[in-house]
Amino acid sequence: MTKNELLDCHDRIKPFIHNTPVLTSSQINKIAGADLYFKCDNFQKMGAFKMRGATNAILQLSDKQKKRGVVTHSSGNFAQALSLAAHSIGIKAYIVMPSNATEIKKTAVKGYKGELIECEPNLKAREIAAKEIEQSKGATFIHPSNDNDVILGQGTACKELLYEFNNLEYVLTPVGGGGLIAGSALAAKFFGNNCKVIGAEPFEADDAYRSLKSGKIETNDNTNTIADGLKTQLGDKNFPIIQREVHSIIRITENEIIESMKIIWERLKIICEPSCSLPLAAIIKNKAFFKNKKLGIIISGGNVDLNNLPF
Amino acid sequence: MTKNELLDCHDRIKPFIHNTPVLTSSQINKIAGADLYFKCDNFQKMGAFKMRGATNAILQLSDKQKKRGVVTHSSGNFAQALSLAAHSIGIKAYIVMPSNATEIKKTAVKGYKGELIECEPNLKAREIAAKEIEQSKGATFIHPSNDNDVILGQGTACKELLYEFNNLEYVLTPVGGGGLIAGSALAAKFFGNNCKVIGAEPFEADDAYRSLKSGKIETNDNTNTIADGLKTQLGDKNFPIIQREVHSIIRITENEIIESMKIIWERLKIICEPSCSLPLAAIIKNKAFFKNKKLGIIISGGNVDLNNLPF
Repeated sequence: MTKNELLDCHDRIKPFIHNTPVLTSSQINKIAGADLYFKCDNFQKMGAFKMRGATNAILQLSDKQKKRGVVTHSSGNFAQALSLAAHSIGIKAYIVMPSNATEIKKTAVKGYKGELIECEPNLKAREIAAKEIEQSKGATFIHPSNDNDVILGQGTACKELLYEFNNLEYVLTPVGGGGLIAGSALAAKFFGNNCKVIGAEPFEADDAYRSLKSGKIETNDNTNTIADGLKTQLGDKNFPIIQREVHSIIRITENEIIESMKIIWERLKIICEPSCSLPLAAIIKNKAFFKNKKLGIIISGGNVDLNNLPF
Repeated sequence: MTKNELLDCHDRIKPFIHNTPVLTSSQINKIAGADLYFKCDNFQKMGAFKMRGATNAILQLSDKQKKRGVVTHSSGNFAQALSLAAHSIGIKAYIVMPSNATEIKKTAVKGYKGELIECEPNLKAREIAAKEIEQSKGATFIHPSNDNDVILGQGTACKELLYEFNNLEYVLTPVGGGGLIAGSALAAKFFGNNCKVIGAEPFEADDAYRSLKSGKIETNDNTNTIADGLKTQLGDKNFPIIQREVHSIIRITENEIIESMKIIWERLKIICEPSCSLPLAAIIKNKAFFKNKKLGIIISGGNVDLNNLPF
């Protein structure tokens, strides 16, 4: 993927997304011992950066494909993102979701006019249900993270951040399926001033960390983390980009996630998902390395169940 | 107070405050049936608009007064605001606080370098303790809301909002001691385009509503509201401004406060105090009146105890 492709992607999706604000906090800078710039994609449309990649993937379809709609399986933010992106562009989105997904998530997808298809709560059933929609409706399957157009779209958050603050030395992102960190690494390479990208991943779902060590894609036996957005599996499209372009991945404990989430909520006064707090935790646990550096953080999403908070 | 005084005040405090961002949400606009512009002073320094008035009051002191410092009694945001404003300007702040104030509040004041003086938890003891500091230290007493310099400072939030969105038809603020709504009404008069200011006040602490009705300052027998920032008493400096310049005051129930707080947290993705949600509640309960109007809302503060949320 080239600089021009990322530029074209950004131009393409701009009418459908927000250029989200960047917040700073002198209190958090004191705690971290560095200058932090939070790119707040929790303020993105539908509440997460996933809107960027979903929009780009849909806009790259042919007119014939658009007529038949798109399908994905997701119980997270990508389900809402694809629903809203499809609705904004005027096409149909089919969303396969496990029957045990929360009512909040189902309602959100319907609110954005996605057509909900429920299935048994296992990966096999989700894949079969999505395949069935591809065949019966002729809909195009769009993967939440392992898709080049999605990766490019996710990279636009980091591109916007570097356009506003061109002297960042590192940009940190959480690592789930790998779309955000791969896109951010491309954006940093193309638009940064010797800016490196570092990932932060839960110990409880550290497939990307272990994959970088072993040189091949590793899987998670279980994913017992509060960072529900980061349980997803690294893919074969984003892994080579991560191998080539990412500086390193730092692993975070569950307690560190909750502590840094509380710092962000209390000091930055924003609602963000547990997943968003891993980059700050990574900085706090590696203070010597990051000391006095200018650091960007992608705040990935703000869709939180207020009735189920860790504090 | 004149337009030029408000302009001068804003120029004076600008180096010490943030011009806070204005957020919008198409989802909230749908719920409200109007176009809402949220001026986010929860992102202000120390987390509340009170920083504006405290800074202005201190900067208006003579050099001799500055040397002797300032004193106030407050268990809320003004305690932190006066502490930080004084520290930023390089003078001493004495903060009288009831001994039963939470540790979080005491720690916050100390964090901003205010000198804490604890007293018995009643108004009489607070006034005596503050008077004692005035006499022994020669410090100047600054009232949290019933002070012309404080009122002018609080008005700068509405001034900034109207500078960015000059077609607002109403600006809504919560009503506590009356400084914010009085300052906002002056700003709307001087800088708005026929813009009116409406207050929102808890039924449980409706002294301003009743004062407007009776034409004289009324008091609260008790103030059993979750909106802890709005328990304070209207004063004789801001009441005449409110009588002259404010369109009306709308009263809000405790349930309406919590419901609209949840809407703001979930949709706008920001942390704000219960007090901040009254203006949205006022709009939602008067949909016919506000239908399709362009409305500004001052989000007054974001200092919330996350271990004590109403949901």
